[in-house]
Amino acid sequence: MFVMGIDPGLSRCGYGAVRQEKGEPVAVVSGVITTPDSNPLAERLAELLRELRQLMSRLSPEVVVVERVLFQANAKTAMSVGQASGLALAAAAEAGIPVVQYSPNEVKQAVTGWGNAGKEQVQRMVQVLLDLPEKPCPPDRADALALALCHLASAPLARAASAAMASSAGSRR
Amino acid sequence: MFVMGIDPGLSRCGYGAVRQEKGEPVAVVSGVITTPDSNPLAERLAELLRELRQLMSRLSPEVVVVERVLFQANAKTAMSVGQASGLALAAAAEAGIPVVQYSPNEVKQAVTGWGNAGKEQVQRMVQVLLDLPEKPCPPDRADALALALCHLASAPLARAASAAMASSAGSRR
Repeated sequence: MFVMGIDPGLSRCGYGAVRQEKGEPVAVVSGVITTPDSNPLAERLAELLRELRQLMSRLSPEVVVVERVLFQANAKTAMSVGQASGLALAAAAEAGIPVVQYSPNEVKQAVTGWGNAGKEQVQRMVQVLLDLPEKPCPPDRADALALALCHLASAPLARAASAAMASSAGSRR
Repeated sequence: MFVMGIDPGLSRCGYGAVRQEKGEPVAVVSGVITTPDSNPLAERLAELLRELRQLMSRLSPEVVVVERVLFQANAKTAMSVGQASGLALAAAAEAGIPVVQYSPNEVKQAVTGWGNAGKEQVQRMVQVLLDLPEKPCPPDRADALALALCHLASAPLARAASAAMASSAGSRR
């Protein structure tokens, strides 16, 4: 399974593609899309949309995982994060790629075992799980890889649950 | 001048195109884009993006005016409104159309003379200003027309101010 995580943001949008090979997750590519603060908002959003589209078309992931944006203390940041997440979700759907969302707490829980883990802990755990030579920086990049890992960890359970439900539905017919 | 207003939203996204003819604003077309609640979020956003793109390409407005989204009491609504506004801004920038944003209060102030006017008052004033046979419904449609009217009312002042600044800068050379 080949999964691309996206940690939406306007100043920094993290992305991280992870492939599951023989049961082991392997980081394929990861990075951060930045748009210059000095450009008008609409142009920055159009640039982000273009970059996300190119990434999805170049990598062709089987699933795109986008962080579910929750309300934050900083209203201005939350709004631009919301706008960026809208673009990521729309770009994936336009490319015909299934989209899954997880909350920040679900991702931290899956990757570190603790829903309130800090940025640094997520970075270190992503480094360990993907056997990277150094911790992924900036945190947006680590968060995107963590989203992909969270989905790879959740997907087998979800598949097993839906198979069990299908089989139980079948046996009731 | 030909201006298209967009009142962003996921369940209902209002649009309203207004042309200034011999100093009088004339409504060209207005309506509401809806996306079904039953569809997944990413597909709804992709559908909204497609519809906005088609509208902009069909109408070719000189300016697109998008409501500046502010934080609301309802966190869930504010997030989807933010996502929709990101799509509207990006679609306009991709089409090469200049984008302007006004806050809800600026729009109400321009159209009704009162920044705290209610939905009903905005609808009635838009009806009067555009000489429509009935008040525009739903409110999202009236709000989109009000955004276009707000820009038409503000643009001459802005043009005069920038002309005055250019002339004053020229005389200082």
